Amino acid sequence: MRLDIARDLLDDNDAIAAQTAELLRAKGVLCVGLLSSPGAGKTSLLERTAKAWSDPLRMAVIVGDVATEADADRLRRLGVPAIQINTLHYGASCHLEAGAVARAVGVLDLSATEVLFVENVGNLVCPVAFRLGEHRRAVLLSTAEGLDKPLKYPKAVLETDLAVITKTDLAPYVDVTAEMLTHAVRQLRPAMPVIALSAKTGDGLDAWLAWLGREREALVNGRVARVATP
Amino acid sequence: MRLDIARDLLDDNDAIAAQTAELLRAKGVLCVGLLSSPGAGKTSLLERTAKAWSDPLRMAVIVGDVATEADADRLRRLGVPAIQINTLHYGASCHLEAGAVARAVGVLDLSATEVLFVENVGNLVCPVAFRLGEHRRAVLLSTAEGLDKPLKYPKAVLETDLAVITKTDLAPYVDVTAEMLTHAVRQLRPAMPVIALSAKTGDGLDAWLAWLGREREALVNGRVARVATP
Repeated sequence: MRLDIARDLLDDNDAIAAQTAELLRAKGVLCVGLLSSPGAGKTSLLERTAKAWSDPLRMAVIVGDVATEADADRLRRLGVPAIQINTLHYGASCHLEAGAVARAVGVLDLSATEVLFVENVGNLVCPVAFRLGEHRRAVLLSTAEGLDKPLKYPKAVLETDLAVITKTDLAPYVDVTAEMLTHAVRQLRPAMPVIALSAKTGDGLDAWLAWLGREREALVNGRVARVATP
Repeated sequence: MRLDIARDLLDDNDAIAAQTAELLRAKGVLCVGLLSSPGAGKTSLLERTAKAWSDPLRMAVIVGDVATEADADRLRRLGVPAIQINTLHYGASCHLEAGAVARAVGVLDLSATEVLFVENVGNLVCPVAFRLGEHRRAVLLSTAEGLDKPLKYPKAVLETDLAVITKTDLAPYVDVTAEMLTHAVRQLRPAMPVIALSAKTGDGLDAWLAWLGREREALVNGRVARVATP
C-alpha cells in the first residue's frame, strides 16, 4: 500500500517534469540539475560560471533549500536571475519536486537564457529519484567528502550524466586527489564522464564551461533526447 | 491525506524508538545518534573514539547507509561490534527508522557496552525527523561544508543536543574556523553545546570523550530524562 502511493507520487512528478523539459527545449533553454551533499560547492560553481560568462543573463537558477534565501542572494548579487524554493513550505522536504520547479519556471523570463540550472537541496539520496525537467544532471563530489561516496550513494552516479569533482585545491590536505575520486566513480560506472575543478582557484573551469556549451548546442540542434520517465 | 499517512508513520516510529531508548536505559547503555552530511566524519570520529578507549568493547555501533558495509567494516577492524543497516532494502531510504534499529539492537550483545552509537545515513534533513531510540543526538558539521549549513538545515541544530565541529585541521584551507562555525550555530540557538575537533589530528577529542562520559554517568544515575516523542 505504501509503495503504491510512493509510485503514484513519482509518476505524477515525472509527468510534470517531462512537460517542463519539453517547454524548456522548445525555448532553446538547456536545463541542468545539480545534485550533491550539503556544502560540496554547487552555488560556488554557479558563481564561478556567472563570472566566466561575459553576460550572466545567459544563465538563470532555481535553487532549493530547506530554509533561507542565501544561495539565491549570492547569485542575484552577480546579476543572475535566481528563484529560491524553500522546501520548509513543502513538508520540509529533503528534495525538490517537479511541481514547485514548474511554477518557478513559469515566473522566470527565459528569453535571453541559454542554461537554466536547478540546484537541488544538499542530499545524495532522494533528489536522484525526483526528475524536475532537467535535460542533464550533474552530481558534485567534493574531495573533502572522502572516496566512499560513489559506492555508498550509487544512484547519484548511476542516474546522472556527469560527475563534477569539486574542491580539488583541498586535495593535498584531505588525502583525496581528483584521480582517486575519478577512479572511485568509474569503479561503479566505467564510462561516467568526469570533470575535476576548483571553484576557488578556477582550475578546471574551462572543461565545465565547454561541457555546458556542447550540451546546449546539442539541445538546440535536436540531439538531446527527450527526457524519458526513468 | 498524504500528511496523515506521514503523521501515522512517524507516530509508529516514535513508539518503537521510545521502547528502544527505555530498553537501553535499563541496561545502562547510553545511545548516541550521529547525524551529518555525507563525509562530515562520523565514522572517523568513531574510529578515533574506539582507539582512545582502552577497551573498544565499551562501545558498539549501528550504522546506516544506502549501500555498502564499508563503515561497519572500518569499525570491526578496531574490534568494535558493528551492525550495518543498508536502507537499499528499506525503499532506498535517506534515513534510518526505529524498526530497523530495534532489530539491530536485539542482535547485539550489549552486556559490556557503555555507549551505543547510531550513525545515520549522511543527510541533514530527514534523519532529524525519525527518532531511533537515542538518549542524545549529536550533529556533525565539517569546516569544509561552509558556514551556512546551520541556518539552511535549522532542525539539525534545533532538535539535537550537541554540535560537533569536525575537520578543524582544514580551517586554514577552507576559510572557516571553529569559532566562525560556533558563531553560526549559536546565531540559531544561543545555548547550543559545541565541541570542535579534528579526528585526523586528535585535537579536541578529549572534550568529546568527556561529554560521552558525563552523559553516560547521567544516564546511569537516572538524570537523563526519558526520551519524549517530539
